[in-house]
Amino acid sequence: MQLKAKYIDMESAEYTAVLHTEDALEIGVREQDRVRIKHERSSAVTLVQITDTVVGKGEVGILGKAWEELGPDPDEPIDVVATSKPESIEFIKKKMNGKELTTEEIRAIVNDISSHNLSNIELTAYVTGLYINGMNLRETADLTQAMVETGETIKFDRSPVYDFHSVGGCPGNKITLIVVPIVAAAGLLIPKTSSRAISSAAGTSDIVEVFARVDFDGNKLRSIAESTGGSLAWGGSVNLAPADDLIIRVEYPLGIDPHAQLLASVMSKKKAVGTEYLVIDIPMGAGTKVPTMEKAQAYAKDFVDLGERLGMHVECAITYGEQPVGRAIGPALEAREAIAILEGELHPSSVIEKACGMAGMLLEMAGMKRGEAKAREILMSGKALEKFREIVAAQGGDPNIRSADIKVGKFTHDITATMCGYVNSIRNKDIVALARAAGSPRDKGAGVLLHKKRGNRVDDGEPVLTIYADTQAKLDQAIELSRKLNPVTIEGMILAKLPYINRTTVIERTFCPVPEAPPGD
Amino acid sequence: MQLKAKYIDMESAEYTAVLHTEDALEIGVREQDRVRIKHERSSAVTLVQITDTVVGKGEVGILGKAWEELGPDPDEPIDVVATSKPESIEFIKKKMNGKELTTEEIRAIVNDISSHNLSNIELTAYVTGLYINGMNLRETADLTQAMVETGETIKFDRSPVYDFHSVGGCPGNKITLIVVPIVAAAGLLIPKTSSRAISSAAGTSDIVEVFARVDFDGNKLRSIAESTGGSLAWGGSVNLAPADDLIIRVEYPLGIDPHAQLLASVMSKKKAVGTEYLVIDIPMGAGTKVPTMEKAQAYAKDFVDLGERLGMHVECAITYGEQPVGRAIGPALEAREAIAILEGELHPSSVIEKACGMAGMLLEMAGMKRGEAKAREILMSGKALEKFREIVAAQGGDPNIRSADIKVGKFTHDITATMCGYVNSIRNKDIVALARAAGSPRDKGAGVLLHKKRGNRVDDGEPVLTIYADTQAKLDQAIELSRKLNPVTIEGMILAKLPYINRTTVIERTFCPVPEAPPGD
Repeated sequence: MQLKAKYIDMESAEYTAVLHTEDALEIGVREQDRVRIKHERSSAVTLVQITDTVVGKGEVGILGKAWEELGPDPDEPIDVVATSKPESIEFIKKKMNGKELTTEEIRAIVNDISSHNLSNIELTAYVTGLYINGMNLRETADLTQAMVETGETIKFDRSPVYDFHSVGGCPGNKITLIVVPIVAAAGLLIPKTSSRAISSAAGTSDIVEVFARVDFDGNKLRSIAESTGGSLAWGGSVNLAPADDLIIRVEYPLGIDPHAQLLASVMSKKKAVGTEYLVIDIPMGAGTKVPTMEKAQAYAKDFVDLGERLGMHVECAITYGEQPVGRAIGPALEAREAIAILEGELHPSSVIEKACGMAGMLLEMAGMKRGEAKAREILMSGKALEKFREIVAAQGGDPNIRSADIKVGKFTHDITATMCGYVNSIRNKDIVALARAAGSPRDKGAGVLLHKKRGNRVDDGEPVLTIYADTQAKLDQAIELSRKLNPVTIEGMILAKLPYINRTTVIERTFCPVPEAPPGD
Repeated sequence: MQLKAKYIDMESAEYTAVLHTEDALEIGVREQDRVRIKHERSSAVTLVQITDTVVGKGEVGILGKAWEELGPDPDEPIDVVATSKPESIEFIKKKMNGKELTTEEIRAIVNDISSHNLSNIELTAYVTGLYINGMNLRETADLTQAMVETGETIKFDRSPVYDFHSVGGCPGNKITLIVVPIVAAAGLLIPKTSSRAISSAAGTSDIVEVFARVDFDGNKLRSIAESTGGSLAWGGSVNLAPADDLIIRVEYPLGIDPHAQLLASVMSKKKAVGTEYLVIDIPMGAGTKVPTMEKAQAYAKDFVDLGERLGMHVECAITYGEQPVGRAIGPALEAREAIAILEGELHPSSVIEKACGMAGMLLEMAGMKRGEAKAREILMSGKALEKFREIVAAQGGDPNIRSADIKVGKFTHDITATMCGYVNSIRNKDIVALARAAGSPRDKGAGVLLHKKRGNRVDDGEPVLTIYADTQAKLDQAIELSRKLNPVTIEGMILAKLPYINRTTVIERTFCPVPEAPPGD
């Protein structure tokens, strides 16, 4: 049937065509069925929604992204034909039934995901099936490879490519802003792409955006990295492994991140830029994504083995994640803290130790000796700051950026201790909730600044943390929320009686970035 | 934030509010987040979609059913407030993690489903989790009870209430049109509600609709059943266990029907009308929902045990389902076949045997002796026809209805044998696909009429089946499809060499409705 194209300006990750009731009846389709819509230049498969008024008889409404993909002119005649379900739904069911999938079956699923051929319902069944039944490493490698093949890949003018990744789950983890300049200053190529916050207070891209642009296509990313040796770009604009973003859209409302999908999500983006040497940070402990050492070791082993299957040298660091890294949480606050360290500030030590530990692992993979010490030397010498400013300039930011110039939220509120004692715990989840309630990550100045960390002594009435917000309304929201939460607990005990905190662990082929240290920052 | 109500005429099972980009930013919500929309008289929780043009700044677009539920006036001021996820998402995740759910957790999930509080993504995660991890009988009983409590219930002026149900999966199963009149003619109360086809060629309601109305509310259903002793109504209009329809919406595109959900779906609708004695037909065999005797027995046991927990006497019949029941598949064709039998026609015997077997089980539950013989006597005496006409009249149909008056599709095409031999198999799936391609169940006259059944001899060139359609275009579609399918296979073997078909089985507390018989109809 031929219908006239009508643009409907609604965002929908599901490619959707809106048909008039009578036309739908004639074509023989119902809601959630599929039609192929096409004109002379292009075609797309969309799900069907039905209406009596949004489009008239003889019209086909095409929503947001499907319109961009198809690129019709308004009122252009469009062929609309009923079409069957994608074959990959059977493979999704096979996984739901606990079976191992073949390379071809996995490729079919990923192809259908990245081509927007699966509805939210079908995509959720895939993610839930994967969450419950898992994938073995062979399947996970195939999944990774399929995700690479359905997106853009970048080849740089030199090799090898080094890269760094944190699986996240620990707030305040702004170390990428320090690791990348150190590694690039050492002469290695580290074209780092990062994500934005999904459920956290700030992703690396949210932080970098405070002082530079982050949205570059593949070509521009290549030229930034080739000219400076590094980059601090947003992965979302490069179209690396685009299936991932579509999968995250259904994982997010459910708050799940299936193990195999997490592995493939990380590794596909590294593989797509040709990474050969990769260091992965796995924050571990209560309140992170990886609550126990056993699970952290399993993750590390899987990353290393998966790397081998994909021709990538991977080393993992299991890091202490039971409280935020450093003291700042939120885009501008974290940017300020990281830049201050690049400028020579010696605190918070947890940020410096972790960043130098990670950078050091990469330097050692490149054959340098005493990597962490070398990394610290590059940081302290000011070479990392110089490289950082080069990268900022290449990304359209002010190369004379100073930490003191970063604007943080104007509206602040202190939370004070109601007793004397020692900080017993700082709950990641509550800190993130406070920062988000204050407007983070959208309001750049919003967030939380911790004045005390685990093990620190605090007096009655002394500020434990400060909430920052860009508007009074958001600040009030965060204050309101703080009454329901218990982000910092204090106990009147002597420090020695606090449970011993194992901040460091070395597993096979991993390096310990943070030497044993007393609690604190 | 207060916005002006604007009706958007699109069907969406997800309650949806459309916000202008700027308003969404101000409220602090993204796509797939939730807002509560309310005015003085009512309120509802909806998912968020975002637009720049479908609604203007200051307006909130409300889709189809959410508009009906909220009932605002156009341009009425509506409060729109960001709201958090329903708590039941945590319980869905608990089931995804393989844990047993408490009564309260199950009730919370069902409450949120029936209140439209769950998105497609969340609902699919529930169904997929249930499909993979299952529920024990205690959970299933709680699920059933929760589904009853979130819908309408009907209390009749007398008791006990008898009922009958087929789990489906075998085409041509029009026996309900015969069972209900027999049982009602015997003086029992059988207020039967049925479903429409989801993936089959015709549900009982699709068939009845050929000659009577089926859409009644609870009050009207009660008066029909109280006055005639029976009913042949559509369950969908009565609002019994409404969560079920919402769950089916996500099961359908995935082609799954989790065991516990299937049990709860059947039993909740029976419990909601106060059923005390229930017979369940479980068609078994290749090409049905229940492929093996082992599985059929497990289903039967679960139905019986679940009935006990719900205070219902349940008996199950495992019936032969490897080929269609009778010869007609499709609404009008099945109506004609069933009414002819009520009029005294003695074929197809498979329909008569099965209907009398099922009706007989119900009569015996009521204390009558030799139930099947008694049922056959009521059928042959014309009393069942008389009762059928009473019910048809009560449901707004022509009480003088005759099988000869039923209009079947005008456009027909014979499929003929290409060799001599015996019919070796008739594939349910292919027959259903042909009937649906021909327009069934929407086109009432569309369907398939079998001339040969399993074990019948057929000559080269002799018609094996006829496809019926209401339009030439649909007939062509079905003919086209028939070239790709193999609905009937013929082998040049003598009948005795065909594999022995066990058509009958008795399990604990079940009755065998179809005595051993040779293959054929």
